[in-house]
Amino acid sequence: MSDRIFTHGVTVEWGDCDPAGIVFFPNYFRWFDQATWRIFDSVGLTREALRKRFANEGHPLVKAGSEFQRSARPGDRLRIDSRIERWGTKSFSLIHTVYNPDGQVGAVGHETRVWTVRKPGTDNELIGAAIPREVIDLLS
Amino acid sequence: MSDRIFTHGVTVEWGDCDPAGIVFFPNYFRWFDQATWRIFDSVGLTREALRKRFANEGHPLVKAGSEFQRSARPGDRLRIDSRIERWGTKSFSLIHTVYNPDGQVGAVGHETRVWTVRKPGTDNELIGAAIPREVIDLLS
Amino acid sequence: MSDRIFTHGVTVEWGDCDPAGIVFFPNYFRWFDQATWRIFDSVGLTREALRKRFANEGHPLVKAGSEFQRSARPGDRLRIDSRIERWGTKSFSLIHTVYNPDGQVGAVGHETRVWTVRKPGTDNELIGAAIPREVIDLLS
Amino acid sequence: MSDRIFTHGVTVEWGDCDPAGIVFFPNYFRWFDQATWRIFDSVGLTREALRKRFANEGHPLVKAGSEFQRSARPGDRLRIDSRIERWGTKSFSLIHTVYNPDGQVGAVGHETRVWTVRKPGTDNELIGAAIPREVIDLLS
Repeated sequence: MSDRIFTHGVTVEWGDCDPAGIVFFPNYFRWFDQATWRIFDSVGLTREALRKRFANEGHPLVKAGSEFQRSARPGDRLRIDSRIERWGTKSFSLIHTVYNPDGQVGAVGHETRVWTVRKPGTDNELIGAAIPREVIDLLS
Repeated sequence: MSDRIFTHGVTVEWGDCDPAGIVFFPNYFRWFDQATWRIFDSVGLTREALRKRFANEGHPLVKAGSEFQRSARPGDRLRIDSRIERWGTKSFSLIHTVYNPDGQVGAVGHETRVWTVRKPGTDNELIGAAIPREVIDLLS
Repeated sequence: MSDRIFTHGVTVEWGDCDPAGIVFFPNYFRWFDQATWRIFDSVGLTREALRKRFANEGHPLVKAGSEFQRSARPGDRLRIDSRIERWGTKSFSLIHTVYNPDGQVGAVGHETRVWTVRKPGTDNELIGAAIPREVIDLLS
Repeated sequence: MSDRIFTHGVTVEWGDCDPAGIVFFPNYFRWFDQATWRIFDSVGLTREALRKRFANEGHPLVKAGSEFQRSARPGDRLRIDSRIERWGTKSFSLIHTVYNPDGQVGAVGHETRVWTVRKPGTDNELIGAAIPREVIDLLS
């Protein structure tokens, strides 16, 4: 568990919004994913570094969800504060809080992800694996 | 509550998948949204009909979530079975079960949506409103 | 060159449309991509088959474009007629014609793609390669 | 015509890339669209301002295209330099040049857009209209 907060800024684009004029909700999950990658990037664990140092092939979701309190519109600048809430053996969980331009909470999302590697001897079969201690230390 | 099942078929496209070669998870929420619109369509409540007959401006999410059990890959044909789980006064909830080509459950999602109309006297301000009885009857 | 026409049907989804209520145009390019994969699928050259039989890693674009004549809206059922216009040594070109529900042309797109394989001895470096004769024969 | 250059920065996200590990090409068109909105924003013509001052309902595409010279990968930071190439009566054209992190050109795109307003007396019917002189002056 950690109180460390990682911040990611997002601009709501015209193409992120639907005919009601507000964000089409799957985009929030796209932004949560971005925020999570940014967390790794922020401590030098880029996608390339993850691959080379840990044979990591990403961290696919086993669970995701969000509550949506206030809608956002094209041009809105959102702030996403993310926190790693839990480190398990092979999985970890995050909380993402989205702030609208007026400072009010627009959405609160959560993700549970599995640390994934390429199964040895296979071309592209993926399996969960223990999260390296070094990764946890860097992010705590 | 209803046991009525609505089915929506989806093909996993190349562009729906990420560098790990599996579906980028926000797409599941996109498919849940499609499935929900299909439910309304299936009883004649197209987007145009909803607008004209009920001044409805969509049914934005207040909550969404999913568990992801088994990944899917480009070319996979998925079946999504959807069920309206709850009718509230202004909101309703759905369960979407995604079946992979081998018949196993790939994901189970849920949505809570608010029946939304354009606020009278405004250009594009949206507010929740009571779900018309006729809509509930058609879908039960 | 070929007069063979491949047809792909697409439903315009709520989330495909922007606040003007019409299709957000990058989605047309997404549909062109789908149509192209469908062409390969239709003769048994699925993504897996392409990988296994030809070490193919896709056919990324070197050029794409479209004219947009008539917009489309949520719920519209579009028909995309695709034709392989040219086979080069390593590249090929396609024309995609999108028909709106009223039968009128909504858009006409073109793509030029490169047959791509994983560079031998590398993990994920991609290079262009000669299109196998068998592939051309199957699609002509 | 103008030599004025507008710059938009984009980070290539994990979810922007396909199983080949490179950007799924329709995303370039999404970024061109973002760049175009940014141009208007940069002179105070936000989406809201465009609506309120000019009854503008966006500027849908009549033509778009791109050449793709060099692929990009997750984490790459791209720079998009945009230039308004032509002002017509109701339409205008732009050129977008995408620079990869190494400074080399990754893609060059073009767009032709129509200045669009809500047709008077209709709910959501869109028609082209003359581009206001003020808009052209602000952007030249």
